[in-house]
Amino acid sequence: MYSLENPAQPQLVEELDPSSNFQDAFDAQILKKATSVAIEKLKDNISNSNPRGLKLLSPDKLMTLVEAFAKRNSTSSALLDTQLLEEIIDLYTATGIPVYSTGYMGRQFSGVIPITGLTDLLTSMMSQPSSFYESAQLPSMVEKVIAKEFGDLLGWKHGTYDMVTTSGGSLANITAILTARNSKIPDFTNFKIKRKTIPAIAVSADVHYSIKRAVGILGIGENQIIPLPINDKGQICMSQAENTLLEAENNGYHVFCLVATAGTTVVGAIDPLEELTALCKQKDYWFHIDGAHGGSFLVSDTLRSRLKGIELADSFALDAHKTMFLPASCTLLFYKDIASPKKTFYKEASYIFENESNNFDGGEKSFECTKRPMIMNLWIPWVLYGKEIFAQKLEALCNIAMQAYNELTIASDFECLHQPQTNILCFRYQSEDAQYMEGFDFQIAIRNKIKEEGKFFISKVEVQGKTALRVVFMNHEINIEHFRSLLDEIRSIGQKIASNNNIEQAITI
Amino acid sequence: MYSLENPAQPQLVEELDPSSNFQDAFDAQILKKATSVAIEKLKDNISNSNPRGLKLLSPDKLMTLVEAFAKRNSTSSALLDTQLLEEIIDLYTATGIPVYSTGYMGRQFSGVIPITGLTDLLTSMMSQPSSFYESAQLPSMVEKVIAKEFGDLLGWKHGTYDMVTTSGGSLANITAILTARNSKIPDFTNFKIKRKTIPAIAVSADVHYSIKRAVGILGIGENQIIPLPINDKGQICMSQAENTLLEAENNGYHVFCLVATAGTTVVGAIDPLEELTALCKQKDYWFHIDGAHGGSFLVSDTLRSRLKGIELADSFALDAHKTMFLPASCTLLFYKDIASPKKTFYKEASYIFENESNNFDGGEKSFECTKRPMIMNLWIPWVLYGKEIFAQKLEALCNIAMQAYNELTIASDFECLHQPQTNILCFRYQSEDAQYMEGFDFQIAIRNKIKEEGKFFISKVEVQGKTALRVVFMNHEINIEHFRSLLDEIRSIGQKIASNNNIEQAITI
Repeated sequence: MYSLENPAQPQLVEELDPSSNFQDAFDAQILKKATSVAIEKLKDNISNSNPRGLKLLSPDKLMTLVEAFAKRNSTSSALLDTQLLEEIIDLYTATGIPVYSTGYMGRQFSGVIPITGLTDLLTSMMSQPSSFYESAQLPSMVEKVIAKEFGDLLGWKHGTYDMVTTSGGSLANITAILTARNSKIPDFTNFKIKRKTIPAIAVSADVHYSIKRAVGILGIGENQIIPLPINDKGQICMSQAENTLLEAENNGYHVFCLVATAGTTVVGAIDPLEELTALCKQKDYWFHIDGAHGGSFLVSDTLRSRLKGIELADSFALDAHKTMFLPASCTLLFYKDIASPKKTFYKEASYIFENESNNFDGGEKSFECTKRPMIMNLWIPWVLYGKEIFAQKLEALCNIAMQAYNELTIASDFECLHQPQTNILCFRYQSEDAQYMEGFDFQIAIRNKIKEEGKFFISKVEVQGKTALRVVFMNHEINIEHFRSLLDEIRSIGQKIASNNNIEQAITI
Repeated sequence: MYSLENPAQPQLVEELDPSSNFQDAFDAQILKKATSVAIEKLKDNISNSNPRGLKLLSPDKLMTLVEAFAKRNSTSSALLDTQLLEEIIDLYTATGIPVYSTGYMGRQFSGVIPITGLTDLLTSMMSQPSSFYESAQLPSMVEKVIAKEFGDLLGWKHGTYDMVTTSGGSLANITAILTARNSKIPDFTNFKIKRKTIPAIAVSADVHYSIKRAVGILGIGENQIIPLPINDKGQICMSQAENTLLEAENNGYHVFCLVATAGTTVVGAIDPLEELTALCKQKDYWFHIDGAHGGSFLVSDTLRSRLKGIELADSFALDAHKTMFLPASCTLLFYKDIASPKKTFYKEASYIFENESNNFDGGEKSFECTKRPMIMNLWIPWVLYGKEIFAQKLEALCNIAMQAYNELTIASDFECLHQPQTNILCFRYQSEDAQYMEGFDFQIAIRNKIKEEGKFFISKVEVQGKTALRVVFMNHEINIEHFRSLLDEIRSIGQKIASNNNIEQAITI
């Protein structure tokens, strides 16, 4: 028991530095001044859709610039050294990935809906950790409203399902698999029992690396992952999957969870969700879908059918900061059964959860205790503009991806590796000369040179051991002309590399 | 292998709705307009330090308000319906916890350094996920610079330690304990070996609930937690701890990690870090310190000595969004040994980590893949104002906590439960009459009535089965007069409840 000697005695209070003026930094005036400076600079950056790639500085060079700021340590007597702030903003934007440019087709990052920049400013200033209702009343309620919007799209009955926000897709996947573990193997942490079978999880061979990590984190172990073979579309191959699972069972594994993907990172493939649901039901697996990339197709009347079956999964996650164009991070994790997330964790904290657990306290269902009320970034544009803006942009991105695919099919010097199921497209440039160049990777050499040229930014990807060029259409201002211009640049660079036949030079690019 | 029939055929491109005008929502002009609307409203809220508590709406009432917004679904032809936006902002601020008020002493939430609101706006617009250098050059570098600042304060040698940012303290603790698990029990997920001992973790009886959760999440299991008794200051009691650990060993447990706290959530206690370090070293435990609340004392020359020993721990975390007054979330997780975080995870993703793992790619060491570049919120004020502003505010908060303690020692009708080691203070109001009221909790009744009155907001806490009132000083504008005014309100309310002796009424408050 805590207790002081009675009567307790007053203690020495340490004196404060009388010259201390830290209060100035908390003056509300600063925000207005700083914002007006920043908005002008931002506007230029956001409005500029000219094709441009990434300005990559060497860590050494950047370190010198950063250290110079530290030495400057403002001596300005005003509340804010705007000159210094402007320089910081310039460096921050100049070294960033150019998500507003039509040359950036690199990864699943996008310029955001501008109003969400403001939402985040509000959220930062308001300090409303959305783990329990009392400290974040509006966000807690808004989570319910957004959950219902999606529930309706899924055909779920109100009151039977649940939704949790998490700081990113990796965390959502871990949370779901943890729920699966605790639901299907409630004695998982009982070290005294002797197991007859080994707990295991089945995942697509093309699953995101965060899933494999999750299995390690949760104590299941990456050796207990059963990889399911994929077909020529990058999807889990059903017939092979069943054989693989049977074999695993025969080898003493108890598969309790299967993780599929709606929009693989590699090629944007969507696994056969309906067939997988049936399989999981039959085998009593927990069925989780990583819809980080493609889950948002739910909001589109045109694209929703590509996710057929998702409404039958035990859980699925979608990253609204990817394909709903919000700032990182805003991930929604859905549970078909409202009882499921109660199994994720057990303990409560006396100083927080005061009464009976109520369904508005999100903290009982997610890893985070102090959690940013990220849902506001989704709800505010949803209210201001309607959900159509998300749907229409997604449809535009899938449209340009298919146009780009068609472009490649009629270009004899390109090999396309798949038809786009979302907004991702992987392909290879073919050159007669390049066949004879061994010992270095032609596609990577092209990609790196493009990056260096600074007009476009695309990524490289490994598709079952074969490297390819990869574009992700995230900017709706990209049209087929931009893509043609990219192909021309690839041709020009590719031919130069191949004809030079200068391997060493190519490697060092 | 992915491959298409050759030659691949062009596919039908689905047509887009020609009336679609989603592009308007992405117009950069919106940001300027919206920001000017919001800043005026924010300024009023931030500048108003009048004592006020929390306006708590019932979920039903709030739901009605929120649903009304959804029905409004703006039909404004302008780019932005500012009227609607203003109403949203009003509801968001009105229902928030009043962190800028001198009446809010509820929890470890604070008004933020205003410039960080702008930082978050920049961060949101720029989309720089700080998991790898290429996509977040400046944040990646800034992490190194901030790590070095702290390394210097710890007396660590540059190049021998590491720092990782995580989305909140819970995640930092999980990450550290995972590193401990994988370092100390590398065969943890090998189900084929027969264990002679059961893996276990020792924690303070007053540890944060996220630690207990972590042990469950990581597959160690909450039954494998060895709780260490605490002394009358709320710290781990060394002599009892050693006995408890010996007993655990004798019972077949293999303790591999000990988690201490620097600033418990309950009373702000700091465990005896130096003695615990020696114990852990002797027993080959991983020593992790949850410094979510108190770790930031490192920046203060006055307060740093309270953390003596932290420099010898294997890992520790601090929440800069708590006691460095930043927006949620910004947690720093430090490892004494630079090799440690490489043991947290194993796998890599081909499409991200291109070359040899380089020490600038934070994604290899943290749970998150797309991670907000949260470090910018710490670095920008650090550069603009110097680290003194953090130190001076912390010192002021500890000063007022000690003044408040002294005030209680001379008030015969209050019982103080501990001397403040940080900025948290727990106490009980004593009333002759209240002794005779059984069947309900007098302290909780007082606390709830204060909440209802709406001038102050304080929390309640359970200290080893005994409820108490708890204040956390997070606002530097709170002075001793505000605290005296709170005590008067407690007296007034307490006397009313006790004299009415109306238990039923008290319960329903």
